[in-house]
Order: sequence, then structure tokens, then C-alpha cells
Amino acid sequence: MKEIRGVVKKETLEIGEILARDMDGCEVKVNGAVHTIRDMGEVAFIVLRKREGLLQCVWEDGVSEFHIKDIREASTVEFTGFVRKEERAPQGFEIRVKSARILSEPAEPMPLQISKRKLNTSLEAKLNYRPVSLRNTYERAKFRLQEGLTRGFRDFLYGQGFTEIHTPKIGAKSAEGGANVFTLEYFHKPAILQQSPQFYKQMMVGVYDRVFETAPVFRAEKHNTKRHLNEYTSLDFEMGYIDSFEDIMGMETGYLQYTMDLLAREYAADLEILGIRKLPRTDVIPQVRFDEAKQMVAEKYDRQFRNPYDLEPEEEHLIGELFREDYGADFVFVTHYPSKKRPFYAMDDPEDKTYTLSFDLLYSGLEITTGGQRIHNYHELLAKMAERGMETEGMESYLDTFKYGMPPHGGLGIGLERMTMQLTGEENVREVTLFPRDLSRLTP
Amino acid sequence: MKEIRGVVKKETLEIGEILARDMDGCEVKVNGAVHTIRDMGEVAFIVLRKREGLLQCVWEDGVSEFHIKDIREASTVEFTGFVRKEERAPQGFEIRVKSARILSEPAEPMPLQISKRKLNTSLEAKLNYRPVSLRNTYERAKFRLQEGLTRGFRDFLYGQGFTEIHTPKIGAKSAEGGANVFTLEYFHKPAILQQSPQFYKQMMVGVYDRVFETAPVFRAEKHNTKRHLNEYTSLDFEMGYIDSFEDIMGMETGYLQYTMDLLAREYAADLEILGIRKLPRTDVIPQVRFDEAKQMVAEKYDRQFRNPYDLEPEEEHLIGELFREDYGADFVFVTHYPSKKRPFYAMDDPEDKTYTLSFDLLYSGLEITTGGQRIHNYHELLAKMAERGMETEGMESYLDTFKYGMPPHGGLGIGLERMTMQLTGEENVREVTLFPRDLSRLTP
Repeated sequence: MKEIRGVVKKETLEIGEILARDMDGCEVKVNGAVHTIRDMGEVAFIVLRKREGLLQCVWEDGVSEFHIKDIREASTVEFTGFVRKEERAPQGFEIRVKSARILSEPAEPMPLQISKRKLNTSLEAKLNYRPVSLRNTYERAKFRLQEGLTRGFRDFLYGQGFTEIHTPKIGAKSAEGGANVFTLEYFHKPAILQQSPQFYKQMMVGVYDRVFETAPVFRAEKHNTKRHLNEYTSLDFEMGYIDSFEDIMGMETGYLQYTMDLLAREYAADLEILGIRKLPRTDVIPQVRFDEAKQMVAEKYDRQFRNPYDLEPEEEHLIGELFREDYGADFVFVTHYPSKKRPFYAMDDPEDKTYTLSFDLLYSGLEITTGGQRIHNYHELLAKMAERGMETEGMESYLDTFKYGMPPHGGLGIGLERMTMQLTGEENVREVTLFPRDLSRLTP
Repeated sequence: MKEIRGVVKKETLEIGEILARDMDGCEVKVNGAVHTIRDMGEVAFIVLRKREGLLQCVWEDGVSEFHIKDIREASTVEFTGFVRKEERAPQGFEIRVKSARILSEPAEPMPLQISKRKLNTSLEAKLNYRPVSLRNTYERAKFRLQEGLTRGFRDFLYGQGFTEIHTPKIGAKSAEGGANVFTLEYFHKPAILQQSPQFYKQMMVGVYDRVFETAPVFRAEKHNTKRHLNEYTSLDFEMGYIDSFEDIMGMETGYLQYTMDLLAREYAADLEILGIRKLPRTDVIPQVRFDEAKQMVAEKYDRQFRNPYDLEPEEEHLIGELFREDYGADFVFVTHYPSKKRPFYAMDDPEDKTYTLSFDLLYSGLEITTGGQRIHNYHELLAKMAERGMETEGMESYLDTFKYGMPPHGGLGIGLERMTMQLTGEENVREVTLFPRDLSRLTP
């Protein structure tokens, strides 16, 4: 009987494996995609794109056992050759190629110059040619950092006693309801796509005390801005037994501290490709009340904003600028948003019911998180719903959660793409979304 | 300016914190949900449900500074008391309670007896009262193992050089197309929910060589069986530069080995609650060709199955049984499925084009994985599509991936809930889905 006994050891070596040993002069096999070829006649530099980075390989006329014309850009190849230290090569060594095996060849030449440091093309073209544009090393480095942000979230929360959950994206009624919901037919019944795992994560606090989920959410908002997506990845957590909503902000700060360390340690190559020399400051994050922040901005920049119940994008931007200038802060917690603009489940501040025990986290002037304490008392929740004229129909399970006892709790949701956007300094959230969905884009 | 400096240290201690130190006789604060109260007059045992398990607390008349009638089941409380070693208590210690602070109270008594070891109720009732039934410690332990299966997948793959991706769930055309797709209206355009991240993960192999995703998939199948869900969590990976499709099976075996170790190490308490004494064998996984497996079953059990192109559920079950009996195997790779029953992108076996270089993994006789090598040559892919009478319209980006060069590659998808079902020995996949979606269930 044939058997499988575990990971199959490859003959080919990865960049890290060569770097980890002292292999100068050794014969090795490497593979990769031909990123560029610089043919100088007697000698040619063939740069392979590998997952860990670019690898310089050298073809020499009369030494390499194949013709340089046999190797084409965008082919994938396996080279046999010798490792040689070379300070000018991207990895500090190069491969002097002896022989080549072609693994695959492209059918057509590349539509974009992906071997440049940064793609010299429009966002539209990048998105239209997504499978190709992402092969650019600058482009792909952004999504490596995105991995780090998600990975850090989970690893940190596992360490803090959180349990990971998977909640359904198709449902009968949504957390925040209303017009901004995608609808579908589910076996002849009307259904919706969840805008957030809010209700489910609250239900699960009654089970595990602390839960998180990293999953897509869907918003049918007709915004066409640089900050909005109609489908995005939400990093959500919810925690019970809190003493105050500061516990939630504390947990998020802990996440940011953990994750910036993780990026510095494990994603240094990607940070370097992106030219990110300084990660945002997370040791201390100032918190300011919503109304105070509004006033500070009005005073410092002599600007008045019309909406007393919310922050406009420009206002968030100025809060970010103010706190960077005056406090050296990259992040700011804005707290105590008006009750009027927060969902029914938000807990009002007992000291002033027109405000809530809630917060947004701004990162360089952009809201990347909304969170807060939730109502945990059944009767209080019913009263708040009645006050807002809401029906309880379709909410039975959610309400059962409270009917049968719930600890004081709260949580938050982080927009992964927005966070990546601020980290990488991009101007449009589509730049940091593999395959964005917006008002006009449904493919690829 | 007020500031947040990181995770807020709690006054209350968790079970693990008390166990880690020698705290016998120390005064501590603990919190939790009142799981049961056994009132014996002079003394009462109040069992708190905490995320790490059950904690026995002892109330004594005249010693505890409150009346036992003030504590109700399903309330959440904070107790101050003394740690005392007690071998008969679930954690090896108990808390002699001095004083209590009620954090919250339920509005009504529990509709289910959640404090029993296993819920003595129907699956329907469990699902209808999901926020409550999951508070049963047996129920919640199943989903802890589910966390372990997902966590192991990611951690193992990070270590193998894979990059995590997030691909859109709303799309214009699906990987496998056809009738089993949920449709929705996306800003006046017809759209679908993805049945699998297949196309996207292949596109991303061209970018990172190795990628994975753990995310929901949606199938509008009208099956009403114990094995089918209309929304489930798929653990997907795709890897480039493979020498053979055995590389993919090797990677999956490595995942299983890593994860069973992880479960044994980090989820021992949950395994114990579930009475799982032996994890499945992963050191060696037999592989058998599809046609051979069919024949072996026919011979051993004297059973003939009608469908020559696929395995029926009963047939899979018997293959599982055969391999358990004759080879002591919990898992079996069944390879070389007929081309006719596999999607167009599956690579045919060059030695016999009626079969594919593909496999299913059976776990105790149930298919939990489908995988295989994919076609990477652009012209070959076009030819296969033409042969099947498929249109290329709407597939431009997918096809671009191959047009501009792709390494030999393959991958797989694992059904998380099915895997959890086999691990926990449940008979219905809904038992291991937090909030299942099936033909008739859209709530909670």
C-alpha cells in the first residue's frame, strides 16, 4: 500500500535555507519565476521571484549549459548552480547557474512592467490586471503586512484567553439593519448578508467570555470614496466581565503593541521593500472625549463642522494631525460618541445619557475601529429598542442571550484594509485590497 | 490627557492563574456565570462557569457575608474568598466565598438544563436555543477543538512559507458555476456568492507561491443530509512548484500531524470533556487509487455501487471501515478520481487521461478534503474548457493568470465542520456548527 508520511522534502532550496547555512561554493537547486533578465552578452543576470524575495542568478556564456535565449521572462524555472557570496545581490549571494529546467512558460509577454520597484500605472490598470500587478514586489509586500496585522490579532487574543468563532454570513436580519444591506434569496426565503458579526459575537460572550472572529462583512453602502469598500475583512472581538469600556481600549492597545513587534520581527523584509522605517507609536495612546476633540480642532484650526453628532472625515483628519503635532501620537481614542449616532445596543453613559460608553480609534486621522460597552441587561435592552421604535421580531435569539443572563461586556471591530492603508501610507483603500468590491467593481 | 497604555490588569484571577501559583489559603477575587447551585442548608456549592472550565465555590451559613438566596443560577458574579485545595473539586481547588458582588441577573429561568454533562435535548431544540445551549460545557468544548483545527492549519502553514489571503465572497462568476450558487443583486448587477476561493487562490500562487485562506463558502445545494451545510468554513491552501500531487497530500498530512499535537498539548481539557481519549493516527496515511478502492470494497463487503465515476456516501464509509480494519488507519487518501467528475481545472493523469491527479481525504469514512494538481498551462486550460463547451467570458482574469505564466501547482479545501464532526464523533454536521445554515434554517 502506498503511503504519505508528512511534508515532502524538496530538493530545491529557499532563500532562507541558503542564508541559514554557510553554503558559499555549494551546488544547489533553486526554483522561481523569471522576474527580469539583463542580458549583457557574455553574462546575463536572471532575477528569480521567490516568495521570500528576489534571487539573483548568473548565466555565463560557455559555462552555463543552456542558451540564454531559452529563458524567457515570466517562465518558471528550476536552476542548478553554485552559491556565491555577492554583496551587490539582493540577498547577499547569487547563484552561478550550471543548468536549467523550464517548468512552465507564459503564452504572452507581460502587460505591465512588474519588475520595477513600484508599478508605474493607474489604480484602475492595477486592479484590472490583478493577477499580474500583484506579482510586483512592492504590491505584494503590502499584503504581507496585512497578513501580519491579522496574524497578530489572532495570536495576541489566543494569548489573552479569547476563543475564535465562525459565525454565519447569510442571515435573516442584520445587526444594524436598514438600507445598507445586501439581500438575496435563500431557498425562496428573503435573506441578507451580515454587515457585522455583532449579534453573534455577543451571543458567544455568554459561552466563552471572550471571543473573536476575522471574517468578511458586507455593506451595501452607496459611498464611492477612497475609504469605503462594500466587502471587507473585519477583525472583531468581544469580551465579558469588563469593569469599564477602557478594558476594551486596553485590549486593542495590547493588540497593537503585540502586532507592531511582530511586524518588526517577522516582516522586516516587507517593511524594507515598502520603505517603512518607523512603525506607529503604540506605547501610549491618548484618549479624548468626542466633544472635547471637536472643540480642540475648532480652536486649533479655526474650523467649524456642521454635524454635532458625528465626526466628518476632514475633522477626523485634523484630530489626527493635532494629536501627532501636540502629543506625538499616531493613534487616538475618541470616546463618548453621542447616543443618537450609535446603535441601540451601545451602553449609554450613566453620567449623561446623551453620550455612550463607546469609542473610535483613529490611526493617522482615519477611523479604523468602532467599539464600546454594550447593554447587558435584558429589560434595559428592550427599553432602548422600544424607545427607538424597533421591532423585536426576528431578534428572538439575540434577546434570549440577555434574557438568560449576560456579563457586562463590550468589544470592537477593526477594518483590516483601512488599517493596512494607514500603515502603508496608501491614499486609497483599494490599493490594499487584493480584489476590491465597490460600487462599480465586481471583478476580478 | 487621559491615556491607554495596554491591557488593563484585572483584580480577578482566572483558573489557570490560580493553578500556576501556589495560592492555597490566599484571598482572591474570581468572577463567572453561576452554572449551578447545590444548596444543602448550612453549606452550598456554587459552580461558576468560566472560560477555562468550571470552578467550585463554597458558601457557608454564617461565614459568607451574604444570603445564599441572593445568588441565582445564570447570574454573573464576582466572589471574594479563599483558595482551598480540594481534590474532589473540578480544578483540584475550591473558593470559600466571603463576599459577593452581583454583576448581572437573568430575566427568566433557563429553558434548558445546561449544567448536565451532555444536553438531554433534540438537535432542533439545541439549535433554536443556540445562545443558551452552547453554554453547556460539552457543547462548547466541541467548538474549542474546532478552533484548534483552524489555528493549527494557519500556524503550520505560516511555518511552511504560506501567505494568508482574503479573497472576495461576492463575485460575478463562480469557480464551479452552475445551479448550486446563491445569487444576489449587487448595485443593479447580478452577482453570486463564491462556492470556493479556487480561482483566487490560484491567481495568488503566481504572487506568493504558497497561499491559504480560512473563510466561509456558500453552496446553494438542495441536499438535506447530515453531512451538508449551505454555508461552511473552508480551510484552503494552494501551493506552487510541486513535483507531483503527492506534495499536496504530504502538506495536508503535515498539517494533520502538527494539529493533532497541538490539540493534545493545548486542548487537553476540551478533549477530556468530550471523552476523546485517542486522537486519530496521522503518522502514516495510506493512499489508494479510486478504482482500486472501489474494487477492494466490492470484494471485501460483496457490495456493488452503481456510480462508476464517484463514491457514494455508503461506499466512502466502507472504504473507511476497510482501512481501519486492515491497516489501522483513520485517514485514507483516495486518488485518481475520474476526469469526468472533476472540475475543468483539474490536471488529467498523463498516463490515462480519463483519470485526474486529484484526491479526496476520507476521515473515518467521510470525505473532508478535495484536492489535486491543477492545469498550469494556458493553452491546455483553454483546450479543456473548449472540450467541455465552456465560455471564457467572465473568466478573463483567471485566464490571465495562466497567460502570463504559472508554476506547476495544486491545492485543496478542507471542510472544517466535517472534520470537527469526525473528530468529536458527532452524527450530524449541525452539531459542530455554531449557527448552521441549511435548507430550512436561517436563524439564529
